[in-house]
Amino acid sequence: MSQQPTLKKEVARWHDFQPSLVEDELVVEEPLEIRVGGQSLIVVMRTPGHDFDLVAGFLYTEGLIKSADEIGTIAYCEDVEQVDLQNVINVNLTNGWDPESQVGWQRNFHANSSCGLCGKMTIESVQQEIPPIESSLRINPAILYGLGEQLRSAQSVFEATGGLHAAGLFNATGEMQIIREDIGRHNAVDKVVGQALLAEMFPLDRHVLMVSGRLSFEIVQKALFARIPAVVAVSAGSTLAVDLAQESQMTLIGFTRGKSMTVYSCPERIG
Amino acid sequence: MSQQPTLKKEVARWHDFQPSLVEDELVVEEPLEIRVGGQSLIVVMRTPGHDFDLVAGFLYTEGLIKSADEIGTIAYCEDVEQVDLQNVINVNLTNGWDPESQVGWQRNFHANSSCGLCGKMTIESVQQEIPPIESSLRINPAILYGLGEQLRSAQSVFEATGGLHAAGLFNATGEMQIIREDIGRHNAVDKVVGQALLAEMFPLDRHVLMVSGRLSFEIVQKALFARIPAVVAVSAGSTLAVDLAQESQMTLIGFTRGKSMTVYSCPERIG
Repeated sequence: MSQQPTLKKEVARWHDFQPSLVEDELVVEEPLEIRVGGQSLIVVMRTPGHDFDLVAGFLYTEGLIKSADEIGTIAYCEDVEQVDLQNVINVNLTNGWDPESQVGWQRNFHANSSCGLCGKMTIESVQQEIPPIESSLRINPAILYGLGEQLRSAQSVFEATGGLHAAGLFNATGEMQIIREDIGRHNAVDKVVGQALLAEMFPLDRHVLMVSGRLSFEIVQKALFARIPAVVAVSAGSTLAVDLAQESQMTLIGFTRGKSMTVYSCPERIG
Repeated sequence: MSQQPTLKKEVARWHDFQPSLVEDELVVEEPLEIRVGGQSLIVVMRTPGHDFDLVAGFLYTEGLIKSADEIGTIAYCEDVEQVDLQNVINVNLTNGWDPESQVGWQRNFHANSSCGLCGKMTIESVQQEIPPIESSLRINPAILYGLGEQLRSAQSVFEATGGLHAAGLFNATGEMQIIREDIGRHNAVDKVVGQALLAEMFPLDRHVLMVSGRLSFEIVQKALFARIPAVVAVSAGSTLAVDLAQESQMTLIGFTRGKSMTVYSCPERIG
């Protein structure tokens, strides 16, 4: 039995001083435990749907796997008490699972807990793992201006609940290839990258990622691991997101409203 | 030297096909390492400003301390290479630090990685730690309708950057007591709770918390640890957030727009 991304629930809708009971559609938030080789890696809170995409994308954008070939099997665990809940997924890797890599990842996940912790060092630590992006992508502003509307009109769950983030992958002519929604913005990105990985769409060096909401460091880091040369958002970018994009030769764009946008880095890909 | 919450940066602002270089104000995102008794607990990404509030609030809303008295000292670490960065904070607890409590917390932090993982069990695990809220608070809808506008007009950093979440603590007559901003919604809540804790405003059983954006499980969990009886948001609540609020006798309100709102749980406090 698959879990649904939304659930109907009776709520009290107030107008002025008058409440009335109505049926509302809520976005579902449920924990998902990711296991690798039977060992628990992490529990994330996510909106059910495209869970295999989420898991594949998470492993990839966190640098835990380098290609789709490393994924042997992905399956819901059948050994758990309530199998119909589908909140535990196990991945078996073709080359086995090196517990050391998990230790390294957790160290990385917690950033540099060494002396002199700062944004600059956080970026240097990412750069040690992943080189800057090389891509000949060149994209017309008119195409970029059109992405937000495509994303919004394709957001099926958001329309019902108003509670979801979206991420979309577009090709260089602005055609949407993948859209995924989740209560977590980073999960939506992982689902997109995971689907691209499982559908053998890599490399993504001629693609654009669009996300609803803001651009934090984590979103840029995930796009960088997926080698996506351009990331577009509806809202603002943070200093650390912009710095990482600049250092990694990623075109980062925020505040896309109508026919205007703010280009934070690598403007040479636009025109 | 204190870090600023915003930073000016030159960006290219495009209108139609015409770029122009302008000075933009970006929200700062920097890592903060929290140490307890000299031991590294976690690194969070946050917007600098009110860091001691953030640390005190984090320890409290994660259940690691039970009162302000447990905090002996909070200080930026002076032993780190670049002291001016102020990205490492150490807390000394009056009763020392039991490493076991950290292990327990991390287990909790990763939710229940046992069999049958589901939202219901996640809520049960929270309930084992913290009982439902008891409060005689009763609040007029007109007061609730006015909170969002107060929060927005008090958001100083958001106005400059458009990139920040806010959380505000109000008393029963709708007067704003504390407002805090951060790139992370949960950080903004921690900063509010931490300030209330350090300013000896506890208990908060006659207060209302308002947050920008969505209501996820994590926000409700943090408000629950702070024993706040009513939480109001601009946008939608998730299933797990609503379920936890119902089980914990917290009044949860979303979609506050003008003179309307959606009451998800415990409506008896409204009227």
